[in-house]
Amino acid sequence: MVVIMRCGATREEIERIKERIEMEGCRVNLIQGENQCILGIVGDTTKLDPDKIQANECVERVTKVQQPFKLANRLFHPSNSEIKVNDQVIGGDKIAIMAGPCSVESEEQILEIAKTVKESGAGFLRGGAFKPRTSPYSFQGLKQEGLELLKLARKETGLPIVTEIMSADMIDTFVEDVDVIQVGARNMQNFDLLKQLGKTRKPILLKRGLSATIEELIMSAEYIMAGGNENVILCERGIRTFETYTRNTLDLSAIPAIKRLSHLPIIVDPSHSAGMWWMVEPLAKAALAVGADGLIIEVHNDPANAKCDGQQSIKPERFKELMKELSQIAKIEKKAI
Amino acid sequence: MVVIMRCGATREEIERIKERIEMEGCRVNLIQGENQCILGIVGDTTKLDPDKIQANECVERVTKVQQPFKLANRLFHPSNSEIKVNDQVIGGDKIAIMAGPCSVESEEQILEIAKTVKESGAGFLRGGAFKPRTSPYSFQGLKQEGLELLKLARKETGLPIVTEIMSADMIDTFVEDVDVIQVGARNMQNFDLLKQLGKTRKPILLKRGLSATIEELIMSAEYIMAGGNENVILCERGIRTFETYTRNTLDLSAIPAIKRLSHLPIIVDPSHSAGMWWMVEPLAKAALAVGADGLIIEVHNDPANAKCDGQQSIKPERFKELMKELSQIAKIEKKAI
Amino acid sequence: MVVIMRCGATREEIERIKERIEMEGCRVNLIQGENQCILGIVGDTTKLDPDKIQANECVERVTKVQQPFKLANRLFHPSNSEIKVNDQVIGGDKIAIMAGPCSVESEEQILEIAKTVKESGAGFLRGGAFKPRTSPYSFQGLKQEGLELLKLARKETGLPIVTEIMSADMIDTFVEDVDVIQVGARNMQNFDLLKQLGKTRKPILLKRGLSATIEELIMSAEYIMAGGNENVILCERGIRTFETYTRNTLDLSAIPAIKRLSHLPIIVDPSHSAGMWWMVEPLAKAALAVGADGLIIEVHNDPANAKCDGQQSIKPERFKELMKELSQIAKIEKKAI
Amino acid sequence: MVVIMRCGATREEIERIKERIEMEGCRVNLIQGENQCILGIVGDTTKLDPDKIQANECVERVTKVQQPFKLANRLFHPSNSEIKVNDQVIGGDKIAIMAGPCSVESEEQILEIAKTVKESGAGFLRGGAFKPRTSPYSFQGLKQEGLELLKLARKETGLPIVTEIMSADMIDTFVEDVDVIQVGARNMQNFDLLKQLGKTRKPILLKRGLSATIEELIMSAEYIMAGGNENVILCERGIRTFETYTRNTLDLSAIPAIKRLSHLPIIVDPSHSAGMWWMVEPLAKAALAVGADGLIIEVHNDPANAKCDGQQSIKPERFKELMKELSQIAKIEKKAI
Repeated sequence: MVVIMRCGATREEIERIKERIEMEGCRVNLIQGENQCILGIVGDTTKLDPDKIQANECVERVTKVQQPFKLANRLFHPSNSEIKVNDQVIGGDKIAIMAGPCSVESEEQILEIAKTVKESGAGFLRGGAFKPRTSPYSFQGLKQEGLELLKLARKETGLPIVTEIMSADMIDTFVEDVDVIQVGARNMQNFDLLKQLGKTRKPILLKRGLSATIEELIMSAEYIMAGGNENVILCERGIRTFETYTRNTLDLSAIPAIKRLSHLPIIVDPSHSAGMWWMVEPLAKAALAVGADGLIIEVHNDPANAKCDGQQSIKPERFKELMKELSQIAKIEKKAI
Repeated sequence: MVVIMRCGATREEIERIKERIEMEGCRVNLIQGENQCILGIVGDTTKLDPDKIQANECVERVTKVQQPFKLANRLFHPSNSEIKVNDQVIGGDKIAIMAGPCSVESEEQILEIAKTVKESGAGFLRGGAFKPRTSPYSFQGLKQEGLELLKLARKETGLPIVTEIMSADMIDTFVEDVDVIQVGARNMQNFDLLKQLGKTRKPILLKRGLSATIEELIMSAEYIMAGGNENVILCERGIRTFETYTRNTLDLSAIPAIKRLSHLPIIVDPSHSAGMWWMVEPLAKAALAVGADGLIIEVHNDPANAKCDGQQSIKPERFKELMKELSQIAKIEKKAI
Repeated sequence: MVVIMRCGATREEIERIKERIEMEGCRVNLIQGENQCILGIVGDTTKLDPDKIQANECVERVTKVQQPFKLANRLFHPSNSEIKVNDQVIGGDKIAIMAGPCSVESEEQILEIAKTVKESGAGFLRGGAFKPRTSPYSFQGLKQEGLELLKLARKETGLPIVTEIMSADMIDTFVEDVDVIQVGARNMQNFDLLKQLGKTRKPILLKRGLSATIEELIMSAEYIMAGGNENVILCERGIRTFETYTRNTLDLSAIPAIKRLSHLPIIVDPSHSAGMWWMVEPLAKAALAVGADGLIIEVHNDPANAKCDGQQSIKPERFKELMKELSQIAKIEKKAI
Repeated sequence: MVVIMRCGATREEIERIKERIEMEGCRVNLIQGENQCILGIVGDTTKLDPDKIQANECVERVTKVQQPFKLANRLFHPSNSEIKVNDQVIGGDKIAIMAGPCSVESEEQILEIAKTVKESGAGFLRGGAFKPRTSPYSFQGLKQEGLELLKLARKETGLPIVTEIMSADMIDTFVEDVDVIQVGARNMQNFDLLKQLGKTRKPILLKRGLSATIEELIMSAEYIMAGGNENVILCERGIRTFETYTRNTLDLSAIPAIKRLSHLPIIVDPSHSAGMWWMVEPLAKAALAVGADGLIIEVHNDPANAKCDGQQSIKPERFKELMKELSQIAKIEKKAI
């Protein structure tokens, strides 16, 4: 950690800050510049609260040197993490493809889509039972009934199921029923939920919040891991920017960035980011080319009648074609689907 | 609602969309342009799901005409809402000033600050008991003990207490103990929590999410109101932008915007937006000048030793001076503190 | 165009707006909703100024139906534009690879890099002679001498040269000396420069501004085209967002978006977007997978001593390896390098 | 400056970086942490190029300690700069009010508006002669004729005139005819134009770019000042964010930030930021309450027929009323209008 003192900070002020940091067990190197004094701090700086230091009027700015996360940090865990889901592995040489409708609508719908995406090579079935919707007047999902239908689809196809949790009081049910528990973008910093999920050992699919930095996404994973659950899969799904043509701006640079900072697997959601079905294919291909460990794609057999997000779902035939192209890209990346 | 068909949409496609909309009870006016056909839709369009219409490949774009919120809409409730908190009112001619530390740290601390902010004219005591922190390793608040200390401070000073709720399973306790329940920026779209709060009749202070639009903030209020609780106070606390000098960018334009769109009261948090104590005073004054109904300000008797957010807290003496200036601005706005 | 009148707009106000629009030769369809009246406008709406209509207090909002650009619009020019540069073509089946240093530093440097990137398969040599720098105290480029060195490198290698213009008074020199004139992100809306470039017939490489929307980028191309110069190549180079880990956020969704909206070729700059050399390779691959027509990449033989942007330059050996992988991706996209 | 070495950087690599920095005349303090080595650099670090240091693969990150600007830095010029314009001063105890139409349209229009804003107390007349427009098909201003009309209005009213320059080849004319030369947001980093303006001694009104940071705005002022022209007035006019309700997000936090960083005066444009006439008044008041040195406001006698930006112009009567309220706020700030 580096503390930059204000111009004109007095000898006493500098000494006071130095002492306080040393009291926490860190070593302080005082560097006197022409206008400003800098304190270079070494030792276990995780005990220091930068905000607390910055609260001193004589301090101009505090700069971190180390990343604030430990368990998720590649520095202390150089090899890629591989997360086991049933008999599959996410984060290794095999690309994970999660496909299915935005929301489970009926037995017929989910079974048909599950079978078709399985045939095309998907490894996981996605589908929402509890839906976070901006409007209280929109369809909120089939809830418990949706979970039952997902389980039925899993029984029929063998595909592990991925679905979103909305509240901590559903954790027991999800642990029992679901293979991968998804935390939606809007709940990425619902710290209470993260803590509760940390107590389970279920794989968690953690989506990046609309305005979350890469560091914040990893810190939210750290919350889950700090509770003892190291089975975290990250997901880039687009961030909010000034551009309005697309619903969100897919930040594919986040993939190599996260690969460098963390050992956790990272997948991409090309459906929610763009919000338009005709963008799903090129973005899915780009995601693999940039190094993602997998994709989560909305597929619907009748998008125009989907209960939600039909505009960003692709049809089963297009998904089938897409899977062929994705296989070719995976091969260049020395991976398989 | 206006539906813009794609160039080259066929007669049949247009008819199919038209029929589907009419089936929902709306009237469709077909306007044939040179290149594109436009459908102008009137009637109760709240039943129509724009995403569902946009899922048709023949549709280019769907534009809303009406705001998606009803209960919070000034259109159907032209006069300002006034929210009663104990014997005070928020949203009327009196500016609500909520002041206190970021987090409750000890009996001595909270009592001292409560007394001093009361003397300076604050109408409410703020203080965190359950703290949302980016890092799992940071101080998470005194929790239940913090609530007890807040109650003690209320008893001593008579100030109603404002504190943040982190999870729905604490609602009963908060309804019992607290005067205004705060929903933090990170939980603004924790829809499950909003629904549960809708079942209470407690005043809710709803903070704008870091990347939430004005419309989304009001839609989150609508969630609470749709459950039957109309006691919602909105709070602008800065949005996330590319500017890094300030922690967030305080969006003061949101105040007149919300005043026009909704009848709900709106207050401003100048402490969290800037993240720097020396910006609190000018931003607080600007907030009143732009028309806010109140302020929530972090005040700490010893910022450099605060357990969190000390860098953005002002000292009691500065708060006292600030209150004098705020009174003058309130007067120009024909309000009182 | 659709005009949404304010709630409570009077009969007379609506008529007045209607008449004014009809005076411009457009046809107005009046749709009366429950609370609001909508005017659906057809005909040549390019003559109407939406801002002018919105300036009426009785108007709530104006929504465009048609894109504001014509010459760059794919609607009126369905096939891809192909821009000829010497004996090469940009925008066809061949991926354009522009490579070279951020800035021209010496004869030795530019010749060595030019030869090496040519050997690896690059089709164009890039290099800055006039450099836009945030600080007046930074190296501003070799200027005229830099241009001479680029010409020398072209003579030696046969590679067409791409370099940035900073001011309209250099146009004659650039038309004479350069093969592709680059307009930098900071000048994307230097309308005076765009107009002057519209009078030439040189290929223009127009970079997207840091906060320019896709529509604004195409509108800047329209400025050049409106002057008679249809040889415009667009370039996505990252936009400014809240994320600070990367210098800019590369918006790869912009590629399929622009392909849909316009017939102009679009290339990607993976060097400036990320600002870090180790991100160039994955982003370059993703750019081709998402459908870009080419790449502009910074290559430097000694990045640590480069006069600018060394941190985002890759070395010739890495570039050579990268070209092999790019060829494989191009093949999947049914293109060649 | 602080250089953070990568984990695992070798002794030799660290020495190599150290030597290179010392060769530029700076002193290097080597601080060895557990995982990483930090170099604390003192001396005249303005000669060091952070990008060049960061281009070394063994360097993780470079952090600046000092602001990159000198002439505009309050550190070396503690008192506020006061810019003289004819017999007036901007940056002192008097609030500068610049008012007038978006663009000069006719003799009658500009004379009428000039007289009326003068009567209401404005100190400067603003009006566009050369207009930067997103579309090449929009009204581009009366150009030279517009300048003549502004001069006429100055003659009639005595108000100094403020108008925007679009290109460096107009500088001689502007120096001759105009009192304050405005550089628009889109040209804030048109470095060639800035350099040319630095050679004059005219007051320059420099508007913040749509996505420019506070530091970049000051760096653009530094460009002008480095050329010898210290008469720079900064202008906050809204930045581009994800919020779409307002055209831009007015960043009022920038005012106290700039006051702390620089000695230059800073004014606010409440018309362009919001883009809606009914927001001008509350934002103008907030701007003065936050500490701005002045305002630039669009006033039009017939907004609905204005050739541009009518939707954000207020009428003379409203301006008159506004000026009264502004005077009251100025008084609280111990200033006068």
